[in-house]
Amino acid sequence: MNNSLLNKFTPKEPNFFPILKEMTDVILVVSELIIECVQISDYDNSVKIYKKIKEQELKGDVLSNRVFAELNSTFLTPFDREDIQQLANRLDDVIDFINRCAKRIVLYHPNEIPSSALELANIIKECAINIDKSVDQLYVLKKNSRKIQEYCKILHLLENKADDVYDNFLIDLFENQKDAVELIKLKEIMSELEKATDAAEYVGKVIKTIIIKYA
Amino acid sequence: MNNSLLNKFTPKEPNFFPILKEMTDVILVVSELIIECVQISDYDNSVKIYKKIKEQELKGDVLSNRVFAELNSTFLTPFDREDIQQLANRLDDVIDFINRCAKRIVLYHPNEIPSSALELANIIKECAINIDKSVDQLYVLKKNSRKIQEYCKILHLLENKADDVYDNFLIDLFENQKDAVELIKLKEIMSELEKATDAAEYVGKVIKTIIIKYA
Amino acid sequence: MNNSLLNKFTPKEPNFFPILKEMTDVILVVSELIIECVQISDYDNSVKIYKKIKEQELKGDVLSNRVFAELNSTFLTPFDREDIQQLANRLDDVIDFINRCAKRIVLYHPNEIPSSALELANIIKECAINIDKSVDQLYVLKKNSRKIQEYCKILHLLENKADDVYDNFLIDLFENQKDAVELIKLKEIMSELEKATDAAEYVGKVIKTIIIKYA
Repeated sequence: MNNSLLNKFTPKEPNFFPILKEMTDVILVVSELIIECVQISDYDNSVKIYKKIKEQELKGDVLSNRVFAELNSTFLTPFDREDIQQLANRLDDVIDFINRCAKRIVLYHPNEIPSSALELANIIKECAINIDKSVDQLYVLKKNSRKIQEYCKILHLLENKADDVYDNFLIDLFENQKDAVELIKLKEIMSELEKATDAAEYVGKVIKTIIIKYA
Repeated sequence: MNNSLLNKFTPKEPNFFPILKEMTDVILVVSELIIECVQISDYDNSVKIYKKIKEQELKGDVLSNRVFAELNSTFLTPFDREDIQQLANRLDDVIDFINRCAKRIVLYHPNEIPSSALELANIIKECAINIDKSVDQLYVLKKNSRKIQEYCKILHLLENKADDVYDNFLIDLFENQKDAVELIKLKEIMSELEKATDAAEYVGKVIKTIIIKYA
Repeated sequence: MNNSLLNKFTPKEPNFFPILKEMTDVILVVSELIIECVQISDYDNSVKIYKKIKEQELKGDVLSNRVFAELNSTFLTPFDREDIQQLANRLDDVIDFINRCAKRIVLYHPNEIPSSALELANIIKECAINIDKSVDQLYVLKKNSRKIQEYCKILHLLENKADDVYDNFLIDLFENQKDAVELIKLKEIMSELEKATDAAEYVGKVIKTIIIKYA
């Protein structure tokens, strides 16, 4: 592999990238699943999808633990270590919030999932694609730092878009949902989706830091 | 400039202080605006004030990003970098929580804002003044470390005071507010104000760390 | 003292361990108190227990501040410092969440505390015992790293167990609690207990990091 960041890191940490890449694959998978999940009206099917997401979430945990073990068994300056750890943690957060949303759908069993949930899930899917691309490009950092910065910009814009969707959902919810228990359920379910987009934006910020330092 | 901390930092990071100072100016402005905001009963005026706060919040984001860029383009030991970054992030948090309060007032549109909101907003204003003074004094650290520690002490006391106001509000709310949806609205609005004072106390803690290390 | 970690740290940081140990003692005390607290139906007695817990919480604050002061007045590499600070902060979190639970019981004054609260409190007690043992063994790290890892494993399992208890509580709550205000009260009270077990697991993770690096 003939690229700048790996060269700089080799032979110190040649093993993070494949693990990080596996994490972004998990994010892609769960972002597809949550789109299904928010469209299902049948309870048993929700449970099935949730179980699939949960499986992926456990995989994400294993992967971020592997990054962690790798970092602590390798000699690295504290600062580099911190950045890679942050990246793994933030990737894990994206997975976690998606999992938490699916779990709440199953635990709370709301009467109906609002259509804005699908809007948010679609935004998350776009986030997943951009996260995947930017981690992919971290291999060849110097050549593509501009490209990566573009992906990070998109993650920021997607988060803003998700904020607007969530705010409009809240306005509508507080105006029209008269059943307080149902209101609590829907607010929490939607809040997890919104947090997933926050986490995705945060991934972008960590990647930007890495770029500034090494590109 | 004839002072200890800057001398120690010069020529490495002469540019943080003015940016941090601009951030405390933003905090002063939003703490004035939130006092207005919690006293308004007219919805359109709430929206107007919220927009002003939002504008300041975006300015705060730009400033904390500038601190971040400055830090990453300057050679610094990791520890110093971390402290300055922490300080900028915590200042940003204060602004964010004030903004979130105003936003929730607009999104949730409660029947009435409790009078304890004004009490909290006034405490936040006092916090803002003490934050501003202590960051101001960071320029001349050695001479004034005792003064700064006093400001940090005050931030701690103000947070305790805010806790008491918030606790009494909660007791009253759960005893007397029979409309659950209204209860949720008010609880969240007030919670953001309380968190703003937590964040202000946290600013004090970060400043104390810096003092211990460099004074 | 004839042990590996202390030898490695001596004479740099001989004073953290006794303070950390005092913190785990506080955790043991509050974990006993919260078991009492969730079983009391008489309001005045709840207030009494809460005051005892609050006292311990203040003690925990003093102790974690002492760790902090100790760290900043001692020469240490940034990485070590961070680990010890993290450990103290996470220990403090366990105490805080227990305190927050007791406080909410007093502030919200729910009609009845669910029996699953006692289940969670008992799990927290088990967490406290394992935290105490593992910090105890940090003195003689090399000899006992396997033992410590076992305690950390148990903390992870206890957190999973607490998750299940909490999830079942939520399913039951949303199905059967028709009073929305009561639902909010109980959900928040129980949520603090669940977070205490998360914090306990996090303590285990920090300890694992220290082991990986120094054992």
